Amino acid sequence: MRILVLGGDGFLGWVSAMHLAASGHDVAVLDSGVRRAYDAELGTSSLVPIGTLAERVAVWAAVGGRPIEAFTGDVCEPGLVAGVMERFGPEAVVHFAEQRSAPYSMIDRDHAVHTQVNNVVGTLNVLYAIAGTGVHLVKLGTMGEYGTPNVDIEEGWLELTHRGRRDRVLFPKRPGSFYHLSKVHDSHNIEFACRVWGVAATDLNQGVVYGVETDETRADARLGTRFDYDQVFGTVLNRMVVQAALGEALTVYGSGGQVRGMLDVRDTVACVRLAVEHPAEPGEFRVFNQFTEQFGVRELAERVRSLAPAEIKIDELDNPRVEADRHYYNAAHTKLLDLGLVPHLLDDATITGLLRLAHTHRDRIDRRVIQPTINWRRTTNALADDESLADDEWPADDESPADE
Amino acid sequence: MRILVLGGDGFLGWVSAMHLAASGHDVAVLDSGVRRAYDAELGTSSLVPIGTLAERVAVWAAVGGRPIEAFTGDVCEPGLVAGVMERFGPEAVVHFAEQRSAPYSMIDRDHAVHTQVNNVVGTLNVLYAIAGTGVHLVKLGTMGEYGTPNVDIEEGWLELTHRGRRDRVLFPKRPGSFYHLSKVHDSHNIEFACRVWGVAATDLNQGVVYGVETDETRADARLGTRFDYDQVFGTVLNRMVVQAALGEALTVYGSGGQVRGMLDVRDTVACVRLAVEHPAEPGEFRVFNQFTEQFGVRELAERVRSLAPAEIKIDELDNPRVEADRHYYNAAHTKLLDLGLVPHLLDDATITGLLRLAHTHRDRIDRRVIQPTINWRRTTNALADDESLADDEWPADDESPADE
Repeated sequence: MRILVLGGDGFLGWVSAMHLAASGHDVAVLDSGVRRAYDAELGTSSLVPIGTLAERVAVWAAVGGRPIEAFTGDVCEPGLVAGVMERFGPEAVVHFAEQRSAPYSMIDRDHAVHTQVNNVVGTLNVLYAIAGTGVHLVKLGTMGEYGTPNVDIEEGWLELTHRGRRDRVLFPKRPGSFYHLSKVHDSHNIEFACRVWGVAATDLNQGVVYGVETDETRADARLGTRFDYDQVFGTVLNRMVVQAALGEALTVYGSGGQVRGMLDVRDTVACVRLAVEHPAEPGEFRVFNQFTEQFGVRELAERVRSLAPAEIKIDELDNPRVEADRHYYNAAHTKLLDLGLVPHLLDDATITGLLRLAHTHRDRIDRRVIQPTINWRRTTNALADDESLADDEWPADDESPADE
Repeated sequence: MRILVLGGDGFLGWVSAMHLAASGHDVAVLDSGVRRAYDAELGTSSLVPIGTLAERVAVWAAVGGRPIEAFTGDVCEPGLVAGVMERFGPEAVVHFAEQRSAPYSMIDRDHAVHTQVNNVVGTLNVLYAIAGTGVHLVKLGTMGEYGTPNVDIEEGWLELTHRGRRDRVLFPKRPGSFYHLSKVHDSHNIEFACRVWGVAATDLNQGVVYGVETDETRADARLGTRFDYDQVFGTVLNRMVVQAALGEALTVYGSGGQVRGMLDVRDTVACVRLAVEHPAEPGEFRVFNQFTEQFGVRELAERVRSLAPAEIKIDELDNPRVEADRHYYNAAHTKLLDLGLVPHLLDDATITGLLRLAHTHRDRIDRRVIQPTINWRRTTNALADDESLADDEWPADDESPADE
C-alpha cells in the first residue's frame, strides 16, 4: 500500500514510517519540523541524539530500507496536504502531525490557542483533502480524551440505554487538558466527516508510550527516534529512568495512584500498521483503544526503583495537574488484539534496557527541565522555577543545551 | 449587575443588551462588526433596515434607556476581552460573539476553518479573561450540538449507568455541521475551565429563534434588530414568511419531518436575563436547553400557509443537509422554566405579525439569496446557482443590495 505519514519526523511518526516501509509498503512522510522548534522554544532536546529528517531518510535507504520519500510543510497550510496527496497518491494517511503535549497546552493562553488551532485546523485540512478520495484516515487520538470516568471505557462508541430507548453514541469524554481537548474536538470533526462525506477513519486512542527502540531503529544508531524526558514532552516511564540514571528520586504526582493505559513503542508501530492494513469502511468512524496494559504511576515507579542499579527513593510531588489521584479505571482494548496485535508487555528487560540507555546518555541530561513547573490551576506558567517565560522573555539561545 | 455582552451588535446580542439594560442592569457591548462583514461577503442584508451600533446605542439612550456602553474589537484578538473587562468591570459576560450559521461553515474549507477557529479561540480568550475573577460566563450554545439522538435529550449532563456502574457525564453530542461542532468544542473547553479554574458557566443550548420584536425594539423603529431570511443566516420561520410575502412557495428540506426546539426572540432575551440573574456556582458547568416548544418544519410551513394572505404552496426540496428527515425528538427544557421563564408560545398573532413585517419590507427582499445552494455533501459550494464563490471571485460591490 501507499501510505503518507503526517508528522513523520516526530517521536512516533518516524518509527511508524520505518515500520510501514519495512513491512513492504510505499511510504512518504510530511513534516514541518515544528517538534524541533518546540525544543528550541523550551530549551530541551532528545536524550538520544537524532539526525535531521533528511539524514534519517538517507540512512534508512543506505541500510537497505524500502525508500521513504520526505515532504516538508505544515498541515495547517491551506492546500498543502491535498497537494502532497496529489503528488504521492496514498491509499492511507496516518496523521501524527499534532502538538502532543498536555503541559505545553497548559503553559498559558498562547500555548492553549496554538495547540487547539494547530491540531483542529490540521485535521480539518486532512479531512477536506481526503473527502471523496476513498483514502483511509488513521488518526492518532489519545486515551486521555476519556479522562477517568467511574464507568468502564468502551472503544469510542457507547451502546446507550436511556429512559427505555436505545442509541449508539460517541462515548462521553472528560479530557484533562487543552491538548486532550483538541483531540476530542478532532474526534467529533472526524466522525462528522465520516457521516457527511463517507470518509473512512480510524481514531487510535493511544495510551502512554514507553521505550524508543523498534526492530527498525536497531539497524543503525542514526535511525533512532526522540527520547523525551522533560516535564513538557517527556512521558512517565522515560522520565523515571532518566531520574534513576541521575541517581535522583523518582517523582510521582500526588500519591501516584493515577492509572493509565500504556504500551511499548513496538506495539505502537504494529497497531498503526494493523489499522492501515485493515481499513475502516467508507463512512465508518472506527475507534481503537491503543494500549496493552494498565498501570498505576506509583506501581511503575516501584518497578523502576527495584531495577535501578543504585538505591533511589520515590518522592511525591504536589500534583501540578487537576486530576483524580485515586479512581476507577477499566478501559476496553480488544479491537487491535482481534486484528492480530501481539503485545510486548512491560518486562524487566525493557525497563533495564531503558535504564541502560539513559545511563549511556547521562551527560546529555538537563536536570532543570525535569521538575514540573506548569500548574493546571494557573493561567500563566513559567517553564523553570528560576525563569519566567512571559511574552518577551523567551529563553536566549545560550540557555539551551546543545542539541542535534 | 454589570454585564458585558460580547457580540452585542448581532441579531440576538443587540436585543439582549437592551433587555438587560431595561431590566436595570449596567450593560456594555463589545462587537467587531463581523456580522455586517458577512453580509458584504455574501451579498445579503437584513430585511429590516438596521442602524450602526453607535446609532442604536445613541437612540437607546435618547429614548430614555439606561445607557449602553459600546466597545469595538474582536474577541479573537489576544488580550482584548481581558482589557475590556478591566475597563468595564462586569459581574457577568454574555458571549454571543460567534459565527452562528451552519450553512456558512459548510461553504468550503476556508469557511469551516474560519468558523471553528473564530468560535473556539474567542471562547478560549473569554475563559482566560475570566479565570480567577469570579465573573459568571453565560455562553450561547445550540440545541444542534445534540443532533437528533434516538433517546431523550437531557440538559447538558447525563446520569449514566453502564455495566452496573454510574457516573455523571456530558450528554453525548452528534452535531450536524462544522458550526454546530464548534459549539460542541466550546462546551468541552468551558466544562474543563470550570473544573480546573473554578469558572462559573452557563451554556445556553438554544433552539431556533423566530421573530425580531421585543418590548425594547418597539420603543423606536431605529432600535430594530436584524431580520435574516437568506439561505446562510436566515432561520426557518423568518425565511418562510418572506417567501409568503413574495407569494412564492414555502420550501422545506425533504419532507420537512425534522423536529426542532424553537423559541420566540422575546424568550431568548428573558432566558439570557434569567441566566445572568441566577448565576452558576463557582466551578459549575451548567447547561440549559433554551427553547419553549418543539415543531416539525412541515408543521411550521402549514401554519404559515394557513395565515398567509394569498394562496401558496409548499415545495419539498432535496435536502442540502445530511440529516434525518424523520426521527425521534424529545428534549428536556425545564431549568429555565424553573427560574421563572414565562414562554411566548407560537400563536397566530406572532406569525401574522411576521407576515406583515415581511410584506412591509418586501421591496428589500432579494430572491436570489433564499434558495439553498450549500450542499453538505460537497466540500466546495457556490453561493448562488449562477455564480461561483471561489477564492478570487468574491461578489463585486454592485452585486450587493443596498444595506445599512
